[in-house]
Amino acid sequence: MSDQGLPSDCVGIVETEYFTFADQAPFVLESGATLGPITLAYQTYGQLNADRSNAVLILHALSGGAHAAGYRSLDDTKPGWWDTSIGPGKAFDTDRFFVICSNIIGSCYGSTGPGSLNPATGKLYGLSFPVVTIGDIVRAQERLIDHLGIERLLCVVGGSMGGMQALEWAAHHPERIRAAIPLATTARSNAMHIALSEVGRQAIYADPNWQGGDYYDGSRRPDAGLAVARMIAHITYLSEQSMHQKFGRRLQNRERFGYEFQTEFQVESYLRHQGLSFTQRFDANSYLYITKAMDYFDLSQSAAGTNGLPVNSLAAAFAGAQDIKFLVVSFTSDWLYPSHQSKAIVSALTAAGADVSYLDIESDAGHDAFLVEVATMTRLLGSFMDRLAREEGVS
Amino acid sequence: MSDQGLPSDCVGIVETEYFTFADQAPFVLESGATLGPITLAYQTYGQLNADRSNAVLILHALSGGAHAAGYRSLDDTKPGWWDTSIGPGKAFDTDRFFVICSNIIGSCYGSTGPGSLNPATGKLYGLSFPVVTIGDIVRAQERLIDHLGIERLLCVVGGSMGGMQALEWAAHHPERIRAAIPLATTARSNAMHIALSEVGRQAIYADPNWQGGDYYDGSRRPDAGLAVARMIAHITYLSEQSMHQKFGRRLQNRERFGYEFQTEFQVESYLRHQGLSFTQRFDANSYLYITKAMDYFDLSQSAAGTNGLPVNSLAAAFAGAQDIKFLVVSFTSDWLYPSHQSKAIVSALTAAGADVSYLDIESDAGHDAFLVEVATMTRLLGSFMDRLAREEGVS
Repeated sequence: MSDQGLPSDCVGIVETEYFTFADQAPFVLESGATLGPITLAYQTYGQLNADRSNAVLILHALSGGAHAAGYRSLDDTKPGWWDTSIGPGKAFDTDRFFVICSNIIGSCYGSTGPGSLNPATGKLYGLSFPVVTIGDIVRAQERLIDHLGIERLLCVVGGSMGGMQALEWAAHHPERIRAAIPLATTARSNAMHIALSEVGRQAIYADPNWQGGDYYDGSRRPDAGLAVARMIAHITYLSEQSMHQKFGRRLQNRERFGYEFQTEFQVESYLRHQGLSFTQRFDANSYLYITKAMDYFDLSQSAAGTNGLPVNSLAAAFAGAQDIKFLVVSFTSDWLYPSHQSKAIVSALTAAGADVSYLDIESDAGHDAFLVEVATMTRLLGSFMDRLAREEGVS
Repeated sequence: MSDQGLPSDCVGIVETEYFTFADQAPFVLESGATLGPITLAYQTYGQLNADRSNAVLILHALSGGAHAAGYRSLDDTKPGWWDTSIGPGKAFDTDRFFVICSNIIGSCYGSTGPGSLNPATGKLYGLSFPVVTIGDIVRAQERLIDHLGIERLLCVVGGSMGGMQALEWAAHHPERIRAAIPLATTARSNAMHIALSEVGRQAIYADPNWQGGDYYDGSRRPDAGLAVARMIAHITYLSEQSMHQKFGRRLQNRERFGYEFQTEFQVESYLRHQGLSFTQRFDANSYLYITKAMDYFDLSQSAAGTNGLPVNSLAAAFAGAQDIKFLVVSFTSDWLYPSHQSKAIVSALTAAGADVSYLDIESDAGHDAFLVEVATMTRLLGSFMDRLAREEGVS
């Protein structure tokens, strides 16, 4: 396919690939339940070098997918979700690195999830899909990395839930990575995170079209509930300052108050649009499963002590990570994963003897800053990757 | 009725009174629409003194009502919503002050609102109830104060939306009050406030049982939507710290993860309970009308300049308030109405030449702190009221 007309720093036209495993022996989940076969949708950009030392795994957030960079076709108006950071000469320079982005299990973008066919029953899973954890998600990614013939990833990187996966790689698969970049994330979902997740789920449950998750065969889908869930979440991705700057109290297509319940303020119109457009691209059951996976995430609990009992210490979770280089980044206006949660990660990594750089970036963009602050992120991630490649002898 | 068995610092058994006005000439709302007759439910505690100088008006928040103190009966297990601050020897000492609390128009606790009978049609209003503003709410209160024969209130006090009303009194009826105590509030709903309101409203609209607001005659009520709206709001009333302290990641009635979508974490159980119990005491349409009134609130816009055009200056709004004594209070962990919003009020009042005391109270309790930090509030409000009474010669 010709890539004419695309920007020169773009990876070009990309295609999604699919890797299926656990088709013989099922994959055992953290819950004890089994799942198989499992398909992961993924994309790759750049070339794996001869000694297979230049692979970077990009880890997506709640609503992301494998399509992180480039365009699906020449008609495509929007590039992948992190195209600003992935491409020739960009932070994850595809002239130097082999970049992989894999959709997580449970999602609705080509990987096995609640909307997939259950071969055992001949029906779509719905709520019979087993609950998965960040640990399960990462172990599935490990299978993909095995499949691609990569012994050790140069770096794993992601923001938000992607950052949880990066930390999970470091805590439980330290021998498989040389570096990790957790952005705007936490090592432990706290009561507020769980509360925000739960109210989103409640909005979906409350929609009669959800039908206990068994809506795939009919024409009624829980769009109204999913839209409300997305609107709640979207507010948490912004900050008071960024919402004020974007919308203030400006009215939408009117000069004075209408004193009714139609959209009056621009921010209302924006939110309704965010909710509606999300229903056209995401599956409500996937929303339930992925938020649940985030709620379970707590590296401080999962570290096993010498007596076999859980040790409530984040440093213990990173005991095997002392040879990994970390770049931890938080943003001053992120109230979903505030800076002190990144500082707790940095303290634990430091206590574990790891090599950690930490930046708390001044930004008004809220949680979304890791995607929005392009210039800062490019400079920061680019120099970290450059140093890493030199230190690890990646050519 | 006997008050035996009630605490000695309690106002005792209380009864709600009703004041009806605008039964001849209708009340003209800010929107230009008219409403009438209008009933306000209210309670009073203590005695109005001979020169009618000891009246304090308590202004309630979104989900509050006239029942601020005391018990409805000897069997009543819960006192009024601000019983900690109103009673003999308390901050609003009913041995000294005549304390009034009036339910707002638009509410569902005895005052005229969307669930009331529209005498013009013989049907309940539903969404044909006109949209009201904080200005309308306060002008209705002014009629009640007239009715009670009070020329000038010693003090108006309220938190959250109650604080908006206190500021509205100061900005637009300064000659009717000697002091105002706005707690944990703002002079201007911003984009984030409007967004949070709107997502709550969207949750109600999304409930098919809402039926465009026309649900009063049937058995189907939009409880699911209202519960989601309440859960969202409830999260904004707490703080990350207070949720962590209350719930952490503790599980509800279980020792290990169930890996399913039932309630697992205590915070989920708490939220579901908050949502459910709210549907048993509140009306979804009232929720729509009251959040809308809050969204419209912006004292910086409503100040009329000398040329008749709106002046975007909060100080101008308080031009008539220089003889009023203010106590402004914010709380460090309140992220719904953060301290900087109270500081903006204080700056504007200072610029307007008013007598302002300001406290930013260190608290982990979030927005709810104004109700929860009883010892601090009692001391602070009590000493302010004591000084005020002495300075104003209230005996």
